[in-house]
Amino acid sequence: GNSVLSSYGTTIFEVMSRLADQHKAVNLGQGFPDGNGPPDIVAAAADYLASGWNQYPPMPGLPALRQAVAAHGRRFYGLDIDWATETMVACGATEVLAACLFGLLEPGDEVVLFQPLYDSYVPLIRRAGAVPRFVSLKAPDWSFSAADLDAVFSERTKLVLINNPQNPAGKVWTRAELELLAGRVIAHDAIALCDEVYEHLVFDGRPHIPLMTLPGMRERTLRIGSAGKTFSLTGWKVGYLTAPPHLLAPVMKAHQFLTFTTAPNLQHAVALGLSKDDGYFTGLASDMQARRDRLSAGLSAVGLAVLPCAGTYFLAVDLQASGIDMADQDFCRLLTERVGVAAIPFSAFYEADAPTHLARFCFCKRDEILDEAIARLIRGR
Amino acid sequence: GNSVLSSYGTTIFEVMSRLADQHKAVNLGQGFPDGNGPPDIVAAAADYLASGWNQYPPMPGLPALRQAVAAHGRRFYGLDIDWATETMVACGATEVLAACLFGLLEPGDEVVLFQPLYDSYVPLIRRAGAVPRFVSLKAPDWSFSAADLDAVFSERTKLVLINNPQNPAGKVWTRAELELLAGRVIAHDAIALCDEVYEHLVFDGRPHIPLMTLPGMRERTLRIGSAGKTFSLTGWKVGYLTAPPHLLAPVMKAHQFLTFTTAPNLQHAVALGLSKDDGYFTGLASDMQARRDRLSAGLSAVGLAVLPCAGTYFLAVDLQASGIDMADQDFCRLLTERVGVAAIPFSAFYEADAPTHLARFCFCKRDEILDEAIARLIRGR
Ligand SMILES: CSCCC(=O)C(=O)O
Ligand SMILES: CSCCC(=O)C(=O)O
Repeated sequence: GNSVLSSYGTTIFEVMSRLADQHKAVNLGQGFPDGNGPPDIVAAAADYLASGWNQYPPMPGLPALRQAVAAHGRRFYGLDIDWATETMVACGATEVLAACLFGLLEPGDEVVLFQPLYDSYVPLIRRAGAVPRFVSLKAPDWSFSAADLDAVFSERTKLVLINNPQNPAGKVWTRAELELLAGRVIAHDAIALCDEVYEHLVFDGRPHIPLMTLPGMRERTLRIGSAGKTFSLTGWKVGYLTAPPHLLAPVMKAHQFLTFTTAPNLQHAVALGLSKDDGYFTGLASDMQARRDRLSAGLSAVGLAVLPCAGTYFLAVDLQASGIDMADQDFCRLLTERVGVAAIPFSAFYEADAPTHLARFCFCKRDEILDEAIARLIRGR
Repeated sequence: GNSVLSSYGTTIFEVMSRLADQHKAVNLGQGFPDGNGPPDIVAAAADYLASGWNQYPPMPGLPALRQAVAAHGRRFYGLDIDWATETMVACGATEVLAACLFGLLEPGDEVVLFQPLYDSYVPLIRRAGAVPRFVSLKAPDWSFSAADLDAVFSERTKLVLINNPQNPAGKVWTRAELELLAGRVIAHDAIALCDEVYEHLVFDGRPHIPLMTLPGMRERTLRIGSAGKTFSLTGWKVGYLTAPPHLLAPVMKAHQFLTFTTAPNLQHAVALGLSKDDGYFTGLASDMQARRDRLSAGLSAVGLAVLPCAGTYFLAVDLQASGIDMADQDFCRLLTERVGVAAIPFSAFYEADAPTHLARFCFCKRDEILDEAIARLIRGR
């Protein structure tokens, strides 16, 4: 097998979900809601299936969905987007990300990344022949300094990849942080790839600020969204991209050979979803915020030290501060096997200098499931 | 953009479909059926959608579909396949192919290919850092010799990629050809990647012989299948792979980061499809054979010289032999714009030494559509 990819194990989400199944554990590992998505969207997809949307759609995506992606960017962020030259649909945000990295990077290019990070980023960057450079964010607020950026930017910096809101940290980037980063991106004439799949999962009235909306960034930013995360339909694997034409074109060159296109029945239903009124989106955030609070209270009640969480599906627990003297991997395995609650070790989100005292718990689950997890933690204490 | 991918244009299928739409041409270019697939399979997918198959399935695919893929290989080819370690599902045969190439190849590896070839093969191979070596098949029977193989195999040959039945040639590989190739693959300790998406579109009672079934090849062959082609549902983008465990594992390392997984509702319906009785599969072939004959007769009637076609969705027309003194690209453009019938220039299927006197016509269309195309050709003669 290829030496870069073979150096990585099976993705941690798959590993922990399998272990959870095996031990009948409550799965607070892999991030997926346990509901069935908005009934109207699901019913629309079933109708499109039955009524003949089953052959190849256009390679960049259905016009109806691309138009909805552009309108969504205008409605929520005031972005002026030409759907025909600035949007693309692919098989999940995962494929969008792969298409961006394979389509934009040359061997030897450097990519700046912020740890903790989603586990597909680095393998893809290295398989594309590029070189990752890491900034490690500092808990509990996951901050970074100008000096941290200076240490990793170079004349070979081609691209900066951020995840905002950030999995697994629960971090929502502030305007000041985005401005600091934008300054460096512009100074190095680099491009920014923004994985914003959790854009509608931001809590406590905070705004989500796309890096693309900052001065000077519109023309050098690619922004990724996800139907899976925005409509709680993770299995649909419909992702979308907004980018200026000169960045979108090379990404499409990769997409056309990675998967070519995406199921048109699902695409059409997602177009309806993006056109839902504002209430849907604020309802999604407030619903998920209530789940965050429910799980957070339960974890705290059993003596676990929970870090602040401003967005995403995920809470971080500090094992050290909880008086648990165990490495994250051992803790998560033991918790799954003995207590019957699966979580993800934070070290899986680091390529270098991984902390081993943090664990990630997913809260995008029904109340009964969260309560059952808490009950098991109480019994297993 | 990445220099390898940027050196390729937009895929010819997309280009010609757009041109066909623009000129309201009958689209005999891109290969997709104009029906809506088997009603029972489509209804099953709609039911799975509505009843809750909308979150992440396991990364390698739904067990039900992987078991069906293994059973299908046993039923049609006598292959003994362990579904849990030897099958994988991905977002169309296109992604399966990409995952195989990115997962198996190292920079500098050589890959042997047979022209004419499907247009994603070479860009993917080159983006994976590997080096393509071409055998050009000789029309009208698309043959090759032992000397042709000796000219391209070397001590750096890592992989051989074949398409059987072969698009756009309409070639179905004979046992003698497969044996000749297998000998070289084994002698060079190489592996074979077989794109067999048209496995059930073989005509005139010919058998489809997977290279994997030849002596010594089971352990060194990866075999790709496609729900899109097998169930006339090209938009579903569900593809599958059968391979020995030591080859499957590195491919999964690529798949998990390219798309991670594939819509579970569609996967589940495809599992039902693969379990249909033999009559479905023979019916598909005989139905498509009748369309081949209908289009072939029509093309011949207007004086076009049609090459023999043993399988796939496609007929090749020899422009030279038809007395048409025009390059294939000019001919296909003119035919689309002036006559209102879209076809694909054969030269798009070559990386080097392209012939320019052949055009590809797709026959997987309803009778009315084929007849309308013929009527337009008669008028435009
Ligand atoms: C692709 S499976 C992982 C889902 C997810 O985003 C997560 O759990 O972090
Ligand atoms: C991915 S679009 C091309 C469809 C096809 O297989 C063909 O037309 O050759």
